[in-house]
Amino acid sequence: MQSEALVGVVMGSDSDLPVVKDCLAILEELEIPAEVRIMSAHRTPAQVMEYATQAEKRGLKVLIAAAGGAAHLAGVLAAYTLLPVIGLPILGRSLAGMDALFSMVQMPPGIPVATVGVNNGRNAGLLAAQVLSLTDAAIKERLLKYRQSLAQSVVEKDRRLQGEGFRGYSS
Amino acid sequence: MQSEALVGVVMGSDSDLPVVKDCLAILEELEIPAEVRIMSAHRTPAQVMEYATQAEKRGLKVLIAAAGGAAHLAGVLAAYTLLPVIGLPILGRSLAGMDALFSMVQMPPGIPVATVGVNNGRNAGLLAAQVLSLTDAAIKERLLKYRQSLAQSVVEKDRRLQGEGFRGYSS
Amino acid sequence: MQSEALVGVVMGSDSDLPVVKDCLAILEELEIPAEVRIMSAHRTPAQVMEYATQAEKRGLKVLIAAAGGAAHLAGVLAAYTLLPVIGLPILGRSLAGMDALFSMVQMPPGIPVATVGVNNGRNAGLLAAQVLSLTDAAIKERLLKYRQSLAQSVVEKDRRLQGEGFRGYSS
Amino acid sequence: MQSEALVGVVMGSDSDLPVVKDCLAILEELEIPAEVRIMSAHRTPAQVMEYATQAEKRGLKVLIAAAGGAAHLAGVLAAYTLLPVIGLPILGRSLAGMDALFSMVQMPPGIPVATVGVNNGRNAGLLAAQVLSLTDAAIKERLLKYRQSLAQSVVEKDRRLQGEGFRGYSS
Amino acid sequence: MQSEALVGVVMGSDSDLPVVKDCLAILEELEIPAEVRIMSAHRTPAQVMEYATQAEKRGLKVLIAAAGGAAHLAGVLAAYTLLPVIGLPILGRSLAGMDALFSMVQMPPGIPVATVGVNNGRNAGLLAAQVLSLTDAAIKERLLKYRQSLAQSVVEKDRRLQGEGFRGYSS
Amino acid sequence: MQSEALVGVVMGSDSDLPVVKDCLAILEELEIPAEVRIMSAHRTPAQVMEYATQAEKRGLKVLIAAAGGAAHLAGVLAAYTLLPVIGLPILGRSLAGMDALFSMVQMPPGIPVATVGVNNGRNAGLLAAQVLSLTDAAIKERLLKYRQSLAQSVVEKDRRLQGEGFRGYSS
Amino acid sequence: MQSEALVGVVMGSDSDLPVVKDCLAILEELEIPAEVRIMSAHRTPAQVMEYATQAEKRGLKVLIAAAGGAAHLAGVLAAYTLLPVIGLPILGRSLAGMDALFSMVQMPPGIPVATVGVNNGRNAGLLAAQVLSLTDAAIKERLLKYRQSLAQSVVEKDRRLQGEGFRGYSS
Amino acid sequence: MQSEALVGVVMGSDSDLPVVKDCLAILEELEIPAEVRIMSAHRTPAQVMEYATQAEKRGLKVLIAAAGGAAHLAGVLAAYTLLPVIGLPILGRSLAGMDALFSMVQMPPGIPVATVGVNNGRNAGLLAAQVLSLTDAAIKERLLKYRQSLAQSVVEKDRRLQGEGFRGYSS
Repeated sequence: MQSEALVGVVMGSDSDLPVVKDCLAILEELEIPAEVRIMSAHRTPAQVMEYATQAEKRGLKVLIAAAGGAAHLAGVLAAYTLLPVIGLPILGRSLAGMDALFSMVQMPPGIPVATVGVNNGRNAGLLAAQVLSLTDAAIKERLLKYRQSLAQSVVEKDRRLQGEGFRGYSS
Repeated sequence: MQSEALVGVVMGSDSDLPVVKDCLAILEELEIPAEVRIMSAHRTPAQVMEYATQAEKRGLKVLIAAAGGAAHLAGVLAAYTLLPVIGLPILGRSLAGMDALFSMVQMPPGIPVATVGVNNGRNAGLLAAQVLSLTDAAIKERLLKYRQSLAQSVVEKDRRLQGEGFRGYSS
Repeated sequence: MQSEALVGVVMGSDSDLPVVKDCLAILEELEIPAEVRIMSAHRTPAQVMEYATQAEKRGLKVLIAAAGGAAHLAGVLAAYTLLPVIGLPILGRSLAGMDALFSMVQMPPGIPVATVGVNNGRNAGLLAAQVLSLTDAAIKERLLKYRQSLAQSVVEKDRRLQGEGFRGYSS
Repeated sequence: MQSEALVGVVMGSDSDLPVVKDCLAILEELEIPAEVRIMSAHRTPAQVMEYATQAEKRGLKVLIAAAGGAAHLAGVLAAYTLLPVIGLPILGRSLAGMDALFSMVQMPPGIPVATVGVNNGRNAGLLAAQVLSLTDAAIKERLLKYRQSLAQSVVEKDRRLQGEGFRGYSS
Repeated sequence: MQSEALVGVVMGSDSDLPVVKDCLAILEELEIPAEVRIMSAHRTPAQVMEYATQAEKRGLKVLIAAAGGAAHLAGVLAAYTLLPVIGLPILGRSLAGMDALFSMVQMPPGIPVATVGVNNGRNAGLLAAQVLSLTDAAIKERLLKYRQSLAQSVVEKDRRLQGEGFRGYSS
Repeated sequence: MQSEALVGVVMGSDSDLPVVKDCLAILEELEIPAEVRIMSAHRTPAQVMEYATQAEKRGLKVLIAAAGGAAHLAGVLAAYTLLPVIGLPILGRSLAGMDALFSMVQMPPGIPVATVGVNNGRNAGLLAAQVLSLTDAAIKERLLKYRQSLAQSVVEKDRRLQGEGFRGYSS
Repeated sequence: MQSEALVGVVMGSDSDLPVVKDCLAILEELEIPAEVRIMSAHRTPAQVMEYATQAEKRGLKVLIAAAGGAAHLAGVLAAYTLLPVIGLPILGRSLAGMDALFSMVQMPPGIPVATVGVNNGRNAGLLAAQVLSLTDAAIKERLLKYRQSLAQSVVEKDRRLQGEGFRGYSS
Repeated sequence: MQSEALVGVVMGSDSDLPVVKDCLAILEELEIPAEVRIMSAHRTPAQVMEYATQAEKRGLKVLIAAAGGAAHLAGVLAAYTLLPVIGLPILGRSLAGMDALFSMVQMPPGIPVATVGVNNGRNAGLLAAQVLSLTDAAIKERLLKYRQSLAQSVVEKDRRLQGEGFRGYSS
């Protein structure tokens, strides 16, 4: 089924959703059509394979995979597509996030995963946007505005801090 | 194709072979028929899927997967079979082996990988043997002898140490 | 005393019980008779030795050992039996679970422990079930159904997510 | 100065070159015009800023930054451009590569770096190629062939292993 | 604009303020004029560059940079000034603070950052004070008194512990 | 001043007291006279030196040092006495306890610190008791009883678990 | 069999001998009668149990256990004796020594192991000597001289450095 | 004895000299009078205390302490002086340098150590120079030239790389 989405966001478990929301929100804010799926590299491997294999044909340009623990999802998607795959490692209760981070980033030569920081859903979305902006001037424009608003927000907080002092400032 | 092998040993790259040899040697020593394959979860994912899917039908009882870095091989095999899958993490140049270990052992609930120590090829083979020995008295017998020889070797080294002294002892 | 149990689940301390429950629950769900014990490799070593030594004779097929910190329990059991021993590392307050994980998985060549993820009680139980299913078609059948239900659950969550949208979805 | 290069590869020190060569070699193999620079985020920060600021205008599409230790290079480039920036962490003598990896991947929300594995120069180049292939069918074609050759190489090694046996096989 | 401040305290995000407050409080207690800014190495890089470049001319003597995650702020400041730059790594939710610590301390040869402990705002301020005290006898005097009060506080707690006993003591 | 205490327990800060209480409680339970002090290797170094230097003359037999972070206290005590010094690393908010553990245990050749587990106050006390029991039969007797009670407690919990079942058991 | 040794040094494998030699050499230098054994917690568990159980009766006062990887040896000895057990973690090829260190030091409350630094054989011996010196004035005297010689050696190296300069100094 | 040195460089062992040489060489290059000492926080604690206590009176302005393992030297010096103390962690064979780094940087609130990267002797020297340059225009001038030469060296390497190509370039 042809997709209108440009970005396919896949999470390994619905427990990843709180982090994935940050990713989806920024894509929405940048008006980038995205679809979101729950699929597991281990519990529903056939769907993952099917999804990755069809992704390009369906019109997707970038995949984002969120997973914790062994976090194979990004790598498994990457094995079945030439689309760039962004890995979003999810913090678990043990190992301080090293498990998901190492499992995503240490891919073997040949099949890269573009990994962002642990639980950094927003950066996964922004990285997808930056890739898309290479050929979409409207996205680039919105990214530029987003960057400016980021900078503006820092400047305003700084200004407020100058006014309120470090003891009065409420973040 | 029906296999005479009971254990299927898969490595993600031929650079894993020095460690995998320890695994194959112990299986040979225990007279357990094994096959050994090079297949990559990311570079030849279809073969891996096919291999895991057919493994049981072909007569295999246990799979062993050796891989370094992101080391998804064990988990991907496990996703496609109900056979026990033993994970053998391979030491790479960075991250001190934590990458392969965490990637193998931290599987999501539902799809376990039986992980042994980093580069511990012999234990991967022995674990397979212990599983097989549950229903094969001859393997159990050989395992028992192997254990006794292990113990004997320690005892002999100890005796030699007593004789030669710690300065004269050559290991 | 002869056991009807096929799986012996041992924990080093009753503080491990919340994790061990996940293991026992899945064994129950798969109708695999199991017994559960509290025994400590260091505080009641003689019981542990006795238990491991008798396990096979009593009819047990697989042992599962849950422990945190130095987590020697699995290794000590493994030293006294040829049954496969599954190690279930328990997260403590310090060292992010690395202590129990490394203590279980890094066994010396000769005496393997089949280690699963930190606090992953369910996978310990499932790994035992997979081993048992090699010779028990009924367990295999139930495992297969369990796997299908796992997959089904992912599919249903995905479907619900499509319906409710990522903002409306409640996990 | 307008560039014919599509990919700008920057390394923080010429000691990174052995790893960066793997990156440049794969770009060359895929016939992707690339330029390579030595620039330091800390020793020549103005050049880095200038380079990043001009990159898009000069026609570059993707930046790759290789650095070890604190490894700020990728992040500093990313701060000055909307082009995707790929981070290639370089292994140093201490900390097992965690320093460069964490410094690259843990970027703050807003400014992502697409991080690949420690010392994995080839994957940095391939990730750039995958991004470019979104709009360049010739690159995609070559990537596809590269993937097939990767798979083919695994298959041939596997075949050779079957023929020579694990003791005779020379990697 | 000329500054009366001797110490410039910069944080990458206002979420760092709770830790930075400890730094500012000790500077205040030691009557060291300080200014505090929110500036981001990645979101407002031009401001950071400008700030570091002007710092010496404006009369600042020491810079303190607080940041979490990739924590490039200290290094980026250090690249643009010869003033001593103190790095204050901030604990994030993942990686146990190793990310910010390694990113700050592992600077390349040539551009040092004087790093203090994770979340140890007070030590960042005290280190600045010790540097300033090299040429300011009044600050040295106050530092000496602070040290004495620290010692005195330990002595008093010890005395109270002797009186109240370890069960009665309330910290 | 001559001490009746055999064990000197020193903590670097009164925030260590919750862990140190476990140490003091077990010493009390074993009727081993102990004194407890708050002294800081860095804030009151002269006291620490004085304390360590006088310890043996005052009749102390074993020192226990509890500290977090850089945790130099144990090593500094050890530098000034030939008495055995037991190091008790305290968990801090960052680095998962690795900082205190490594700082205590990795002493240079020549000056050992007998390190116990992170936050394991009870083991610090017990180790002191075991040393003292080498020449004090009464302590040995009480230690033996303590060990038996430990074992008994495990046995009783196990018995209760058998009775109540894993769902009914309340720890 | 009654022992003349006061210290029992046990190693899990003869590959630990290079490190254990440092331990034995210092005991010899301090004229402390010691015996050295190769025994494995997992390969010869009955010997280990027997050894620990008999140690006190045989006249031993302190046990030292050297082991790498899972490194259960010290803990297993400690479970069977009230003698102080010193753990000497041995560096392996993976995990940077964290495996042996954590496995030794993180013992459960009740059964301490006095752990020294990774591969620090000399400190294991010295810690034993310090314990013995509590009741043996001759050992104390020799320890004191050893400490003085240590200090003297540092002083002499310092003096030589002053004379030769840092470029001429050969260590 | 009054010193002409402005910087006191102390190492815990002469095995640290290869790294310390980088520190001394840069101080020499910047014409900053320095003295170098071998003193051990644990083997010659009285000298260390004496040295730190006298440092300021003798005319020293900054102390640099190099040490590996538990690496208490910097902290112990810092406890006895108000001079800024720079910590230079030395890589050992185990724990990848984390031991020395954590032991130096994680000082308790009140007594900071200005820590630089593992084995980064040059940065220790440069940080001292930057502190001294606050009141010494000649040092500042030389530091500025050093920085320029650093930048120039990067620029020249970059130029050479452009000329020779990445395959011809010899570093």
